Amino acid sequence: MVKKVAIERNVLSENDRLAAVIRHRLAERNVICLNMVSSPGSGKTSLLERTLGALAGRINVALVAGDVQTENDAVRLTRAGGRIVRPIITGGACHLDAKMVTRALDEIDLDGVDLLVIENVGNLVCPSSYDLGENMKVVLISTTEGDDKPQKYPSMFRRSSVFIINKTDLLGLSDFSLERARENALRINPDLRVFELSCRTGDGLQPWYDWLIELTGGIV
Amino acid sequence: MVKKVAIERNVLSENDRLAAVIRHRLAERNVICLNMVSSPGSGKTSLLERTLGALAGRINVALVAGDVQTENDAVRLTRAGGRIVRPIITGGACHLDAKMVTRALDEIDLDGVDLLVIENVGNLVCPSSYDLGENMKVVLISTTEGDDKPQKYPSMFRRSSVFIINKTDLLGLSDFSLERARENALRINPDLRVFELSCRTGDGLQPWYDWLIELTGGIV
Repeated sequence: MVKKVAIERNVLSENDRLAAVIRHRLAERNVICLNMVSSPGSGKTSLLERTLGALAGRINVALVAGDVQTENDAVRLTRAGGRIVRPIITGGACHLDAKMVTRALDEIDLDGVDLLVIENVGNLVCPSSYDLGENMKVVLISTTEGDDKPQKYPSMFRRSSVFIINKTDLLGLSDFSLERARENALRINPDLRVFELSCRTGDGLQPWYDWLIELTGGIV
Repeated sequence: MVKKVAIERNVLSENDRLAAVIRHRLAERNVICLNMVSSPGSGKTSLLERTLGALAGRINVALVAGDVQTENDAVRLTRAGGRIVRPIITGGACHLDAKMVTRALDEIDLDGVDLLVIENVGNLVCPSSYDLGENMKVVLISTTEGDDKPQKYPSMFRRSSVFIINKTDLLGLSDFSLERARENALRINPDLRVFELSCRTGDGLQPWYDWLIELTGGIV
């Protein structure tokens, strides 16, 4: 058991080393990087589809889309106007790691890119342990998932800088309370920036777009 | 890397050994065991709450509820009438393993129990690799998650015997197609028994109850 822990630590510190290289590489090119994490089906891809459409011509976005299997998300993002989209199929692994992202970045021309968005595997547990060289983790939940998710998956909320509550159009169809979700999350991490939005109706998307433009120095 | 794989294999085979012991222990007492797996927020706990209420006095159910943090689910299940409920807090681990279940079973009096339900950690990836000594895995998704989940998390669907599509009351509020979800799942595992239901309205719950009664030889 001691052996196992020791080796996991080695794997993680190797990951951290690679993540630091990614971070340096992106900073040199003034590329801001977000690592998007959530349960399967919270709406990471839908949010990115809308965001690509809304910010076309204002922020130059590159995307890395991770999935256990299929390139579905990468295909959706390309269709939504993503010019630079690299899929990563983890082939069973429950998270992206810095090595996979390094390989994906080797195939991306970062010239002129303002924002790199990494869409992680749908999983609220494992991806929290892997630094991918991002500037911030963005954690999403949807209003159909239950407002106690921050308490149940605290590590992810502790390590995220932004908390997005998606599918606000479905409020009232479950017992989900926006207020409780916000409170539960802020109790774990008071520094979280919270967005409440609906990718379906478009409600609440503008503050998210404005924030991305401010973050990347994009065209207002 | 070779070293890491070797050790993971050892961990798994130790898990398989413990799972075989659990399976034997439950079979001796004629206890049927289901391992419920899904994303966070698909409605495992809600389904179990309804099921406990509906089958009270007909099937004697014991429950093991796993969570990364909090005993929220165990508390909900006890409130719903669960007489025998054991929480397992994994403390960060992304799945239950046979060792945790063994420890939980040591504190459960199985006399007269017909059905043991293990509610796994909300995660569609990692729990697929861990045999907990169950007779069957039951995988849930909800209609708000997207109908391509079977393709994206094939291992879980391949290793499950039952596929439950929950939140059918929210159909029409997203692009989710019951037919596509069913087809995607059956393409991966043609032997899946499929239930389509809504824990909120109660629609479709009766066939699930009937199946559980048949499975356990409970009182019709």
